[in-house]
Amino acid sequence: MSTPEIEFKGYGITTTDPAKWSEFEVVPIKPKHFGPRDVDVAIKYCGVCGSDVHTLTGGWGSTPNVPLVVGHEIVGNVTRVGDAVTEFKPGDRVGVGAQIGSCGECRACKAGDENYCPKMIHTYNNFYPDGVLSQGGFSTGIRAHEQFVFKIPDGLELRDAATMTCAGLTVFSPLKVNGCGPGKTVGVIGIGGLGHYAILFAKAMGATVYAFSHSASKEADIQKMGADFVVSTHDPDYYQPLQGTIDIIISTIDHYSPDRPLKSYLSMLATHGRFITCGLPDADNPLPPVHPFDLTYNGCYIGGTHMGSKREAVEMLQLAADKGVKPWVQELPMSQAKQAIEGVKTGKARYRYVLKQDLVSYD
Amino acid sequence: MSTPEIEFKGYGITTTDPAKWSEFEVVPIKPKHFGPRDVDVAIKYCGVCGSDVHTLTGGWGSTPNVPLVVGHEIVGNVTRVGDAVTEFKPGDRVGVGAQIGSCGECRACKAGDENYCPKMIHTYNNFYPDGVLSQGGFSTGIRAHEQFVFKIPDGLELRDAATMTCAGLTVFSPLKVNGCGPGKTVGVIGIGGLGHYAILFAKAMGATVYAFSHSASKEADIQKMGADFVVSTHDPDYYQPLQGTIDIIISTIDHYSPDRPLKSYLSMLATHGRFITCGLPDADNPLPPVHPFDLTYNGCYIGGTHMGSKREAVEMLQLAADKGVKPWVQELPMSQAKQAIEGVKTGKARYRYVLKQDLVSYD
Repeated sequence: MSTPEIEFKGYGITTTDPAKWSEFEVVPIKPKHFGPRDVDVAIKYCGVCGSDVHTLTGGWGSTPNVPLVVGHEIVGNVTRVGDAVTEFKPGDRVGVGAQIGSCGECRACKAGDENYCPKMIHTYNNFYPDGVLSQGGFSTGIRAHEQFVFKIPDGLELRDAATMTCAGLTVFSPLKVNGCGPGKTVGVIGIGGLGHYAILFAKAMGATVYAFSHSASKEADIQKMGADFVVSTHDPDYYQPLQGTIDIIISTIDHYSPDRPLKSYLSMLATHGRFITCGLPDADNPLPPVHPFDLTYNGCYIGGTHMGSKREAVEMLQLAADKGVKPWVQELPMSQAKQAIEGVKTGKARYRYVLKQDLVSYD
Repeated sequence: MSTPEIEFKGYGITTTDPAKWSEFEVVPIKPKHFGPRDVDVAIKYCGVCGSDVHTLTGGWGSTPNVPLVVGHEIVGNVTRVGDAVTEFKPGDRVGVGAQIGSCGECRACKAGDENYCPKMIHTYNNFYPDGVLSQGGFSTGIRAHEQFVFKIPDGLELRDAATMTCAGLTVFSPLKVNGCGPGKTVGVIGIGGLGHYAILFAKAMGATVYAFSHSASKEADIQKMGADFVVSTHDPDYYQPLQGTIDIIISTIDHYSPDRPLKSYLSMLATHGRFITCGLPDADNPLPPVHPFDLTYNGCYIGGTHMGSKREAVEMLQLAADKGVKPWVQELPMSQAKQAIEGVKTGKARYRYVLKQDLVSYD
């Protein structure tokens, strides 16, 4: 290759000491080998996700590979495209989410469900086939196969699109898969980054939305987001009037105490309704016990979901542009990644942090 | 009413002593008040179900109301119809399954999913609105609202249809709901009464079938039933070659030891595949623990099901007649109900017992 090797740099951790999980310093990033279908992106914004916390703290049971730069809600502009890239050209406004590779050959990939490829590569902390560690978006740039790059439609601000590429897609995908639309009723449990998107997208898709929250302080916000009904879960009998009425529950719970009333949640589902767990708790924190009886009286389902496919990402971004979906984000300069990520861990985000590039100027 | 009050008689228990759960004696049965849409049925055969065992032993956490006659896989001939009955006439060959009442007004009933009506009345051990205890089919006759009576198509033997009305329908319904058909792959775990029907109906619906069994002694039978592949679960790694390949798993497990490899079962599911638990364990026997991660990598579901609707029953019986579905049943005279029900409890049935009427002669 005649092109000089490009390097990026980002805010990364350099030790696996869990006590220093949020101690970022600027580290160089060597991207994977540039392939014919790869795209380089100059990063302008990157959102901050609960996955970043779980990865850095080792909560999901694996130690981070260091130095590691996290962040997988990435938007920016294309700077370079490989010879075989057809979908993008330099200057295009694009996003990259939590997945950056798949095998392209398995049943899931062939069905357009590459987010369920068993050989998927996550945007950071995974290894590419060439042995390079994938590195995230708290950085100046990222290199990605075009399958994992999404064009941002006109009319959608880059800053708003950033957190859609993971938080938005993570709830849009199960809403889509499980039939959200006019005439359907959606419940959202836990109104944080994911939950606020579940309200916004379920409304944009035409559903009636019940939002369930423990935080009285969020109630006014939730109404402004467009939820039709706000249900306080402080009343222990809150679920009773709703039994048998909700088609899809999007649960963003990412920590289960053993007394979490999973059975009560399931009882709110209509016949064959689905309870979709979108949050991923730490490895030692399973779902509360379930008896088959809890699934019997309405023939309901407990389901999982993982990110979303490109097909779904493209549809979601267009829906957001068409319907004016506007996420509730707080902007900080990227050098304040520590404050942002600690805010995510302690539940301070209202409702998602977006870091603005400050390692270089791309304007 | 000018018609004299009809009484039936059946083999029932007369004490709630769990040690005497299978001590039947002949008891008189007072049916509910005869309504304009009711049908009386002279019972010719009644199958024996695991639910009978759970109810009589109190395993589901409630004490049986005595005297109690169980049995809810009922076939026979119509002997009398109410003034408003349009679907049946005396002499018709009919079946009655595990449900005998619903409200007719709720969301589930109006959608034709009366098997999910919150006010459902089970065929035995429930109370009708008039205060009469519902009594099952180890008896001379039963009275049922026509909604819960299914015509048996020509070409299907009464004896064969009996166990379809509960065991057959309990697996046909989730196969139908979850999209079983040509091009789909179905796994069946546990090849007893329900499991053998799951093989027969999944094949009749055009699917490819994997049967999972612990019993080497059943392997030849399972092949004769038509399963495409028989997988012995003695090999601890049996699930690995099947990961990501099965669309619907019908689980008939009705006792979970804590080390049951639920996670392994789920890993065999294709993207958005469904694990449907059709067995109903005792109340103190929940599903093994599940972590949201176990649902994530294929976006799969754990679902429940409860009996089936009339719509589904009619479709199933017609399919059985059209495709020549022939269940594997062992016939005993009804007076041997004790032997049959104890055989169900100890797993001796190959693969379902059918009791033939011997309290009266209807021939």
